[in-house]
Amino acid sequence: MSSASVRIGQPAVAVETPALVIDLDALEHNIARMAEFAGARRLRLRPHAKTHKCAAIARLQLDAGAVGVCVQKVSEAEALARAGISDLYLSNEVIDPAKLARFAALAGTVRMAIAVDSTLGVDRLAAALKAAGTMAEVFVEVDVGHGRCGIAPAAAGALAHQVMSHGLRFGGLQAYHGAAQHLRSEAERAAAIAHAIGQARAAQASISSAGLACPLVTGAGTGTFIHEAESGVYGELQAGSYVFMDRDYADNAWPATAPRFEHALFVKSQVMSRGVAHAVIDAGHKSHAIDSGLPRVWQRALAFRNGGDEHGILRPLEGGSAAALPALGDTVWLVPGHCDPTVNLHDRLIAVRGGLQDGIVEAIWNIDARGCVQ
Amino acid sequence: MSSASVRIGQPAVAVETPALVIDLDALEHNIARMAEFAGARRLRLRPHAKTHKCAAIARLQLDAGAVGVCVQKVSEAEALARAGISDLYLSNEVIDPAKLARFAALAGTVRMAIAVDSTLGVDRLAAALKAAGTMAEVFVEVDVGHGRCGIAPAAAGALAHQVMSHGLRFGGLQAYHGAAQHLRSEAERAAAIAHAIGQARAAQASISSAGLACPLVTGAGTGTFIHEAESGVYGELQAGSYVFMDRDYADNAWPATAPRFEHALFVKSQVMSRGVAHAVIDAGHKSHAIDSGLPRVWQRALAFRNGGDEHGILRPLEGGSAAALPALGDTVWLVPGHCDPTVNLHDRLIAVRGGLQDGIVEAIWNIDARGCVQ
Repeated sequence: MSSASVRIGQPAVAVETPALVIDLDALEHNIARMAEFAGARRLRLRPHAKTHKCAAIARLQLDAGAVGVCVQKVSEAEALARAGISDLYLSNEVIDPAKLARFAALAGTVRMAIAVDSTLGVDRLAAALKAAGTMAEVFVEVDVGHGRCGIAPAAAGALAHQVMSHGLRFGGLQAYHGAAQHLRSEAERAAAIAHAIGQARAAQASISSAGLACPLVTGAGTGTFIHEAESGVYGELQAGSYVFMDRDYADNAWPATAPRFEHALFVKSQVMSRGVAHAVIDAGHKSHAIDSGLPRVWQRALAFRNGGDEHGILRPLEGGSAAALPALGDTVWLVPGHCDPTVNLHDRLIAVRGGLQDGIVEAIWNIDARGCVQ
Repeated sequence: MSSASVRIGQPAVAVETPALVIDLDALEHNIARMAEFAGARRLRLRPHAKTHKCAAIARLQLDAGAVGVCVQKVSEAEALARAGISDLYLSNEVIDPAKLARFAALAGTVRMAIAVDSTLGVDRLAAALKAAGTMAEVFVEVDVGHGRCGIAPAAAGALAHQVMSHGLRFGGLQAYHGAAQHLRSEAERAAAIAHAIGQARAAQASISSAGLACPLVTGAGTGTFIHEAESGVYGELQAGSYVFMDRDYADNAWPATAPRFEHALFVKSQVMSRGVAHAVIDAGHKSHAIDSGLPRVWQRALAFRNGGDEHGILRPLEGGSAAALPALGDTVWLVPGHCDPTVNLHDRLIAVRGGLQDGIVEAIWNIDARGCVQ
């Protein structure tokens, strides 16, 4: 972990680079807009904490009306529970008995739910909870189009029945379409989610045929939540990235009626070398994830070129002149291509009030579940 | 940080997933081969620690004859110095006065060197060292082909003169060609390094014209070190990735005479979901970096497909059958596409002796400089 100091009250421009900086006004705007959206439709909002891994941000979401948060790994749940978050849904499968034992222990201290998509998974989960003497809510994951985890809709009834036969609480269906989130056009996303809704309905029918009730369908992400919200099928939204709004989500085409989210997550960087026709900044892909493409340079007519792990190379946008290049020592703000894995590279978020350039550090938040991949 | 336990003496197969595992036999083989290569040619070896960020591995390299290690950031130097490494070369530019003050303080406790490529950088470095009352060796970086940091060869003499006019120790030339490392064919890499050697010679001439001696030319990486070693110009090799040998470097074409390095770094993963024609493992790009392409599945006829941040999707190789797919709960080992940023995602390296599948955990090493980007 870096030993550079950062202090509350410090000007944002004085924060050492590279650093992960939050524009608090934008963050609060985003949290409020999504809470309003879900509230107006009487939908539960359970934002995905895999995006921020940060108890301080989870608390802001809960204060705005979220019913709890989602996590993706047992260690992520443990870290957020330690930091005071008490209603966690692990929206993913766990098959390792040692990890399930940790999950079951955690379920004795906070409210836990989990997803399943196999009979082996249900048996092992039930054994772990029985051994620990604890209880959890269980969601059956259906593959609604991604082709990753989840069972076929027609198999949902049998798996839900198995969950209940072990005396576990059947919570409903996990129906998240990850691959739909980054389809660029609104029409493509609408079509993908129409398919997902059909799959979720088919799974509901399977559960009904098994003589069971389906209390809830949960899913949706920042790219598609408008469609799940309109479906009448989904009762809970899991969107996470809206809180930061990365470059990749901003590149999606959005309908005029969609809530507008603002960029709230930035990598602060500094020019450390200058050529005649390029500038080199001190942030490469050890500072921001590039799985969804390169970052965008914020409010400057500059293109970011991959400079490797530790550097970024800036050039004027096409048609621009070298006069647009920043000078040695100048600050440059980046909007990361993908927020979730970018946050996972850092130990803390530096929350700034009053804008990036003129603002003041108002809070320093631990990224409590940074690196929690197990 | 994950709370899962791992113990020395534990079977490797019992280590919780995803985890970063070292094959110690392969690691020691790689360290010995590179030490022999440099030793036989009377070249200094200063491996780049940005690859492993781990004092335990740096010590193995030093024990095998390395003169010290390179780092890329001040905070990386601080972390390795705290962990006992006492000869560090920061082969990169630093322009921020606050960071330079930290560098100068560190130079009072361990032997430090640094690269420069601007008059502003030299002035600020000199001011920081003067304020701290410490000394460092300074290398002038020349752009030998990458087009990133470094000055033109003809400017080297003037900058070296400025270094000495401040009373700093001029160490020689930093002449690393990063972009050459991953050119696939040996002929392309040879041509790129022939150009780099020409640029380094031109910089030496500039220094000589300024009436100065050039004590050392330092550079080279795992993809090209054979060429720098043969040049008669380079006196020190900075290769780092050879210690782990990732998928991307293995994909380079290698001449028969090159030292053979083995894969020593693996991500251990587990099958957590199974479809009819695919398996899903619990390692995505929060567990391994994908900037240089996807990982390779180790010793199985399976293709890895991007499953996002938390998942990997495995399918049979083309022409293979679904019978090749692993079962729910099975262990799958991945060879990461790029070792440096993969290591930077984890807190520790689990070092295994006796092979991955049958081996025993012999050591657990902190990744001391994980996340040290400042």
